[in-house]
Amino acid sequence: MSSRYDRAITIFSPDGHLLQVEYAQEAVRKGSTAVGVRGANCVVLGVEKSSVSPMQEDRTVQKISMLDKHVALAFAGLTADARILINRGQMECQSHRLNFDNPVTPEYITRYIAQHKQKYTQCTGRRPFGISCLVGGIDADGSARLFHTEPSGIFYEYKAISTGRSANTVREFFEKAYRDHEVTTKCEAIKLATRALLEVTQLGQSRLEVAVLENGKPMKMLDSCVISEIVKIFQKEKEQELQAKAHKMKR
Amino acid sequence: MSSRYDRAITIFSPDGHLLQVEYAQEAVRKGSTAVGVRGANCVVLGVEKSSVSPMQEDRTVQKISMLDKHVALAFAGLTADARILINRGQMECQSHRLNFDNPVTPEYITRYIAQHKQKYTQCTGRRPFGISCLVGGIDADGSARLFHTEPSGIFYEYKAISTGRSANTVREFFEKAYRDHEVTTKCEAIKLATRALLEVTQLGQSRLEVAVLENGKPMKMLDSCVISEIVKIFQKEKEQELQAKAHKMKR
Amino acid sequence: MSSRYDRAITIFSPDGHLLQVEYAQEAVRKGSTAVGVRGANCVVLGVEKSSVSPMQEDRTVQKISMLDKHVALAFAGLTADARILINRGQMECQSHRLNFDNPVTPEYITRYIAQHKQKYTQCTGRRPFGISCLVGGIDADGSARLFHTEPSGIFYEYKAISTGRSANTVREFFEKAYRDHEVTTKCEAIKLATRALLEVTQLGQSRLEVAVLENGKPMKMLDSCVISEIVKIFQKEKEQELQAKAHKMKR
Amino acid sequence: MSSRYDRAITIFSPDGHLLQVEYAQEAVRKGSTAVGVRGANCVVLGVEKSSVSPMQEDRTVQKISMLDKHVALAFAGLTADARILINRGQMECQSHRLNFDNPVTPEYITRYIAQHKQKYTQCTGRRPFGISCLVGGIDADGSARLFHTEPSGIFYEYKAISTGRSANTVREFFEKAYRDHEVTTKCEAIKLATRALLEVTQLGQSRLEVAVLENGKPMKMLDSCVISEIVKIFQKEKEQELQAKAHKMKR
Amino acid sequence: MSSRYDRAITIFSPDGHLLQVEYAQEAVRKGSTAVGVRGANCVVLGVEKSSVSPMQEDRTVQKISMLDKHVALAFAGLTADARILINRGQMECQSHRLNFDNPVTPEYITRYIAQHKQKYTQCTGRRPFGISCLVGGIDADGSARLFHTEPSGIFYEYKAISTGRSANTVREFFEKAYRDHEVTTKCEAIKLATRALLEVTQLGQSRLEVAVLENGKPMKMLDSCVISEIVKIFQKEKEQELQAKAHKMKR
Amino acid sequence: MSSRYDRAITIFSPDGHLLQVEYAQEAVRKGSTAVGVRGANCVVLGVEKSSVSPMQEDRTVQKISMLDKHVALAFAGLTADARILINRGQMECQSHRLNFDNPVTPEYITRYIAQHKQKYTQCTGRRPFGISCLVGGIDADGSARLFHTEPSGIFYEYKAISTGRSANTVREFFEKAYRDHEVTTKCEAIKLATRALLEVTQLGQSRLEVAVLENGKPMKMLDSCVISEIVKIFQKEKEQELQAKAHKMKR
Amino acid sequence: MSSRYDRAITIFSPDGHLLQVEYAQEAVRKGSTAVGVRGANCVVLGVEKSSVSPMQEDRTVQKISMLDKHVALAFAGLTADARILINRGQMECQSHRLNFDNPVTPEYITRYIAQHKQKYTQCTGRRPFGISCLVGGIDADGSARLFHTEPSGIFYEYKAISTGRSANTVREFFEKAYRDHEVTTKCEAIKLATRALLEVTQLGQSRLEVAVLENGKPMKMLDSCVISEIVKIFQKEKEQELQAKAHKMKR
Repeated sequence: MSSRYDRAITIFSPDGHLLQVEYAQEAVRKGSTAVGVRGANCVVLGVEKSSVSPMQEDRTVQKISMLDKHVALAFAGLTADARILINRGQMECQSHRLNFDNPVTPEYITRYIAQHKQKYTQCTGRRPFGISCLVGGIDADGSARLFHTEPSGIFYEYKAISTGRSANTVREFFEKAYRDHEVTTKCEAIKLATRALLEVTQLGQSRLEVAVLENGKPMKMLDSCVISEIVKIFQKEKEQELQAKAHKMKR
Repeated sequence: MSSRYDRAITIFSPDGHLLQVEYAQEAVRKGSTAVGVRGANCVVLGVEKSSVSPMQEDRTVQKISMLDKHVALAFAGLTADARILINRGQMECQSHRLNFDNPVTPEYITRYIAQHKQKYTQCTGRRPFGISCLVGGIDADGSARLFHTEPSGIFYEYKAISTGRSANTVREFFEKAYRDHEVTTKCEAIKLATRALLEVTQLGQSRLEVAVLENGKPMKMLDSCVISEIVKIFQKEKEQELQAKAHKMKR
Repeated sequence: MSSRYDRAITIFSPDGHLLQVEYAQEAVRKGSTAVGVRGANCVVLGVEKSSVSPMQEDRTVQKISMLDKHVALAFAGLTADARILINRGQMECQSHRLNFDNPVTPEYITRYIAQHKQKYTQCTGRRPFGISCLVGGIDADGSARLFHTEPSGIFYEYKAISTGRSANTVREFFEKAYRDHEVTTKCEAIKLATRALLEVTQLGQSRLEVAVLENGKPMKMLDSCVISEIVKIFQKEKEQELQAKAHKMKR
Repeated sequence: MSSRYDRAITIFSPDGHLLQVEYAQEAVRKGSTAVGVRGANCVVLGVEKSSVSPMQEDRTVQKISMLDKHVALAFAGLTADARILINRGQMECQSHRLNFDNPVTPEYITRYIAQHKQKYTQCTGRRPFGISCLVGGIDADGSARLFHTEPSGIFYEYKAISTGRSANTVREFFEKAYRDHEVTTKCEAIKLATRALLEVTQLGQSRLEVAVLENGKPMKMLDSCVISEIVKIFQKEKEQELQAKAHKMKR
Repeated sequence: MSSRYDRAITIFSPDGHLLQVEYAQEAVRKGSTAVGVRGANCVVLGVEKSSVSPMQEDRTVQKISMLDKHVALAFAGLTADARILINRGQMECQSHRLNFDNPVTPEYITRYIAQHKQKYTQCTGRRPFGISCLVGGIDADGSARLFHTEPSGIFYEYKAISTGRSANTVREFFEKAYRDHEVTTKCEAIKLATRALLEVTQLGQSRLEVAVLENGKPMKMLDSCVISEIVKIFQKEKEQELQAKAHKMKR
Repeated sequence: MSSRYDRAITIFSPDGHLLQVEYAQEAVRKGSTAVGVRGANCVVLGVEKSSVSPMQEDRTVQKISMLDKHVALAFAGLTADARILINRGQMECQSHRLNFDNPVTPEYITRYIAQHKQKYTQCTGRRPFGISCLVGGIDADGSARLFHTEPSGIFYEYKAISTGRSANTVREFFEKAYRDHEVTTKCEAIKLATRALLEVTQLGQSRLEVAVLENGKPMKMLDSCVISEIVKIFQKEKEQELQAKAHKMKR
Repeated sequence: MSSRYDRAITIFSPDGHLLQVEYAQEAVRKGSTAVGVRGANCVVLGVEKSSVSPMQEDRTVQKISMLDKHVALAFAGLTADARILINRGQMECQSHRLNFDNPVTPEYITRYIAQHKQKYTQCTGRRPFGISCLVGGIDADGSARLFHTEPSGIFYEYKAISTGRSANTVREFFEKAYRDHEVTTKCEAIKLATRALLEVTQLGQSRLEVAVLENGKPMKMLDSCVISEIVKIFQKEKEQELQAKAHKMKR
């Protein structure tokens, strides 16, 4: 019966569902995984990049985009849709600076993006945006912020969040692994985000993309060699853990 | 047969129903419960917050929003839709202050929101808003006001009202428990609203959100420790009641 | 076969019917009863208010609204639709005063409302309004006027009229009970309207709402105690009648 | 097969029919009968009024409306549609006087109404008007004019014409009864129109409405007592006729 | 299969047909016959008028209309559609005179009408015009012109042409009967057009309408007595012909 | 399955086709044949004219139109559509002269027409134009140009090209018969175009229409006697050829 | 089931797909192959031209277009769609020069084209563009850039990329054959692009079209003789390779 209600974008099914929005979320669930981790003074965003071809220039495959010097966006879902939203976000950041003489807050630009998405779920003549966004940024007072928006236009703030193909696995991982005292430093935040991606990626460490936002510094993409260093540390830790276990079992 | 009339938003079924509006109310009935209680000089709004994840920041999950210093809105239903209406409400409050040099009355802003909802039930190209709102506020003369709007655009004033998943249970509770003389003080209003939520919530006291509006003061969210204090008082009262009963029965 | 023609708002069925308009009248027939009585120098409007909850504030449940100082509107049908029409009517009254320096006539504002309704039955993209309105008012020369508009946009003037759930019963009552000489005074008009409502209401006298418009005075809602006084008089009259009958039969 | 072509307003069926226009004419055929008779220096319009209730004010049930001092319109079909067209016609008459400093001719205003109707048969998003109009008026040179417009937008001039429920019966009656020399005087025109209505009405003489337009005089509605006088004359004539017949047969 | 393509106005069927345009031509084929004959210095247009009723005023049933002093239009098909096109054509003629200080050429106004028709076959939201027009007129150099436009918007110039119910029969007649030297005079052109109509009309000579356009003279409608004179001549000619034949056979 | 995708103008079928455009090309394929030949300093356009009736004026049946003094257009397909495009093209030529003080190039006006066509294949609410155009013209430097546009909006330049009913036969003919050195003179170009039409026409030489564009001269239509002269030459050539063959065979 | 979701352009299927966009990509896959190779200081674009007829002028069949002096575009898919996008791109390049006094970067114009494409996948009333574009250009600092955009609006940068009928074969070829050090010179880039096309073309070398963009020089199309020279070199290389192999095997 649901099939009768899912083709007209702007209507409710008899049990109160908006089916097109749910299908758009399905498109997100097909997208590659994106994660975000908020540290004490920083936000780390990470994605896996599906490699179309070795001929492709890495720079344009980037799935993490700066909206402003202090705000970045990672997404899961339809890339072309994302580009539109990113562009609108960037323009809003610019125009905010011009009109108000100060930068947007991460929450302001997240709400701007979320409302734009909601509009596309209520009016005819348009389909919902097929992307979920993670917006990370630094407030004027230096505190780090991390938001998540869905195709429906809902947004919430998180300490650590994931979206895309393996979102649920990562969220469970975060609930176990995230401890406030652990992510006070930038290093810990980077390690947590990277490990979350490694837990679920099928593409190998070389296809990871990790960005860091700190107070007073522009967004920085991690070098691939840095990432492989982190991977080595994980492996060492894992071995030590195993040895420790073995050691324990021996006793 | 109804299936023929429910997909076109703006038409009546042969027995005079607007089915899309009724489906939108179904979306409201799926939403988490919201309650409102009007005291002599104050209004208390309360909601239960569905916790998506422990990683989520409580602040952005807030389901009670200030429209103006003296008016607040709680809702049940689609969060993204609510954000749009809240935003429009807030802007209308601002523009009213600018144009007329005095704040909106709670009734004015409720009518504004309700008419906006009605428009979405009569014109094609849009679906109804999938939310019910409780609007509480303080009039210029200091008297407290509490309104309820439905997806259809109907609104009424109430002494105590509930909407969302467990609305009916709470309404019955209010009809029994609300006595005008009981809610003369702020304390009593807070206790009544909290107890109403506790009656129906499946999430436990920690997921409650309670806001108070008083004359001359901005909206104040209750501390979670205050709420747990109230819960303790209830438990004590219940025990005393039970003891009293037992005592009675003994005699 | 009718099912083919009733979903497209603006088309005729092969036998020349506009089915959506007829379905909207069905919505009116589901509404609570409204009555209007025209006296020599006054108009009385009366409605029964369906009580959603004892917690509800009576004031916002009012189904009789002033359009201007000398014109009032009662309705049966969808409340949210009514609020829109009332609002438009009130604005038209205001703008008429500004543009023409004198108030609208009751007939002018009735025609304005009726044409607005008709437009919604002929153009696509909108559904008909699901309400019938009784418009009562006082002309510039002090004479009382009473009009009735249907969802189709038809309007007529009446001496006494009813719409909504029990419209037919009340109309029959009026045809028997209304005698021109009986309603020369305000009192008689009030009594006739009240009695008409009592004939059909299932809610009891306390849920009645009666408004009076007189030349040179603003609309006045009757006090509930006044209504109960009237009810007492009816009961007394009934008893006297019964006694008289009994007395007759004895003889 | 026709059923495929009759729901879309603006398309031809394979055999070249516009079915929605034909359905609208069906709505006209359901309307109460209207007649028009052109005398030498006058036009007489007549209708039967379906009486909804004895409480109804006759004045607003009038189915004959003045468009200007010298032009009147009677209709058969949907009353709400008629009010719109009458209103537009009246406004056009006003604006013509203002812009050109002289009144419209009956033909001009008929063409205006007819073109408005045609537009509603050719554009999407609107249904045809469900009424036929009789437009009677006096030209600047004092000669009487009588026009008939259909839902399709066709209009023709007539000496005597009828539309609505019993149009065909009346037309046959006119073809027999109308003789040019008979209707040179106002009286004869009134009598012919009244008799045509009496031939077909099921409502009795008291529900007839007859209007007369003469050169240099505003439209005048006939008094019901005048009508009953005319009816008496008919009855007398009929009796005399019968007597004459009987007298003949005797011989 | 055609049934799938004929309801959407603006689309081609798989074999490259525009079915709505072809259905509109069907409406033309149902219309009463119209003919046009071009003489050396004149154009003659003729139609048969379907008589709705003897009460009808002949003047408004006229199916030949002046567009300008020197251009006239006859049509077959939907009368209401024709009135719209005629009106537009007349207005264009007026505005051309005003803007360019000289009258339109018959070809210019034909192209104007034809393009207006074509637009209605290519854009959605409108149906094609259900009429074919014959446009006759006199050029600035005094030469006569005769054009024919179809619902599709095609137009061509002709020496003699017919459209409507019996168009094919008349065309065959013209191909046999039209000889250039025969129609050098106005008389011959009138006779040819009248005879063409008499060949096919089922209504009798009294329902014919014939108009003549000559250089330097406004359009002139032929008197019915003139037409009957022509008919008499035909009959005499026929008799003479028969006698001649009989005479021949005798020999 | 195709039937599902061909009624909505602006969508792809699952295998990537735009079916409405292909159906429009079907309408072209039903049109009468048009050919174009580019010589060294001239372009020749030729068409066959379907003769509707001997009464028709040849001049308006012309299927070759001047866009500007130095550019002409021949078409195959829907005549009414062609007239619209020709009109737009002519206006663009005029406005180009006014705005830029020099004439359009043949390529510019071809691109203008092609883009207009493409727009009608991508936007809803309109069907594609059902015509193919051959645009021939002379550049500012005197060189001849010949273009072909399809309903899809594609255009290419050709030395010799054909469209319409027998396009494929003619194209094969051109590929055999066209040799660059052969068409250096105007005569050869005319002969090639005429012969191409004679190869395929079923209407006989008298229905051919051939136009020549030369540098510095306005477009010139060939006289029918000139065409018959050419035909005679062909016949003579053919006979000579046959004789030559016979002569050869004898040897 | 997919058939329900693929006709409405702007909606998701239940599994999160945009079917119209996927069908448009099917149209691209039917298009002739286009390749792009980025060298150190140059970009080479190459296409195969489907030859419609030997009569066609090569110049207008060109599938590689200059957007600006330093940016070129090659495409696969619907030619008419491509012309529109190319035209828009060219105009944007012009207006950028005027407004900002410096040329667009290749990335800017690629994003402009990609966003234009995305818009056509999200709004109703339009279909997606049925083309993939390769945009090659030189940055202000002299470095070469090469981008690829899909019908969905996605774009990426590449070192070497192919689209159209044989895209996959060519991409595999590039992955094997492309070595950064190999394409440092213009010659190597040309050779790589040409060889890629020769690998897949069914049309022979004469139908290839190859364009080169170098810093400070406008786009240059390769001469067909140059291409055949390159082909000869390949053949020689192949032979030498075979000889070498044979030589090896002998040993």
